[in-house]
Amino acid sequence: MLNVNSIKRGIVIDHIKAGCGYKIFKELGLHKAEYTVALLKNVHSNRIGKKDIIKIENEIDIDLTILGIMDPDITINIIENEKIKEKISLSLPESVKGILKCKNPRCITTIENIEEVEFILTNKEKKEYKCEYCDAITSL
Amino acid sequence: MLNVNSIKRGIVIDHIKAGCGYKIFKELGLHKAEYTVALLKNVHSNRIGKKDIIKIENEIDIDLTILGIMDPDITINIIENEKIKEKISLSLPESVKGILKCKNPRCITTIENIEEVEFILTNKEKKEYKCEYCDAITSL
Repeated sequence: MLNVNSIKRGIVIDHIKAGCGYKIFKELGLHKAEYTVALLKNVHSNRIGKKDIIKIENEIDIDLTILGIMDPDITINIIENEKIKEKISLSLPESVKGILKCKNPRCITTIENIEEVEFILTNKEKKEYKCEYCDAITSL
Repeated sequence: MLNVNSIKRGIVIDHIKAGCGYKIFKELGLHKAEYTVALLKNVHSNRIGKKDIIKIENEIDIDLTILGIMDPDITINIIENEKIKEKISLSLPESVKGILKCKNPRCITTIENIEEVEFILTNKEKKEYKCEYCDAITSL
């Protein structure tokens, strides 16, 4: 089994759905990182069978909203002195702004190309959000 | 320090120039792999300061010519039963076919869009190859 030892100080993004780690790695700009990072794909997991993991040996700001939308089941461990200092469980954000686009072709936000539109979570299980302007449902 | 433990059976691509691991990872299609793989970036190296490493928990065919062109200083370790069975040092290939394109706009291969053109290594340090048709020099 391929494992990665603990890191001294940094962030471990764990329980990423197998196959999604690469997308998150890129989204966080880690492919261009100057510090030590690791992307592990298809690692054995007792909980979810196979998972991806990202380890970051640095303190960086992570956009939890974007991560929550990309994969709400991931957990984030903040590491200090090789120990978990904080464990953050993600969830789908109740509302997002400037991330989703309305799928309704007649919506004012589509016609006038409005950015920073707010979407409100309406169905957690189906990952559905509604547009603040026209109430049309957009699913992730 | 971020480390990755040994793998049982597979391939370790080591001493990749820091910053080049991601390109090789993608070139080998590992971002889509269904088996366990790891990409480590900016790992401490006694020999070259910082390096990237790729670990593959699977037996796959690797195109050594393309790897040699991308980074001739990398070493490849074939792992069996957690031990290094074979160590392959790469070098710039003496000739390549179908990988480089001639930079001479008047070369027949450019005009007639000929693929599979052979290029011969002429200067190892400058990584220069010459076109088999017009002798124009192409550097990597």
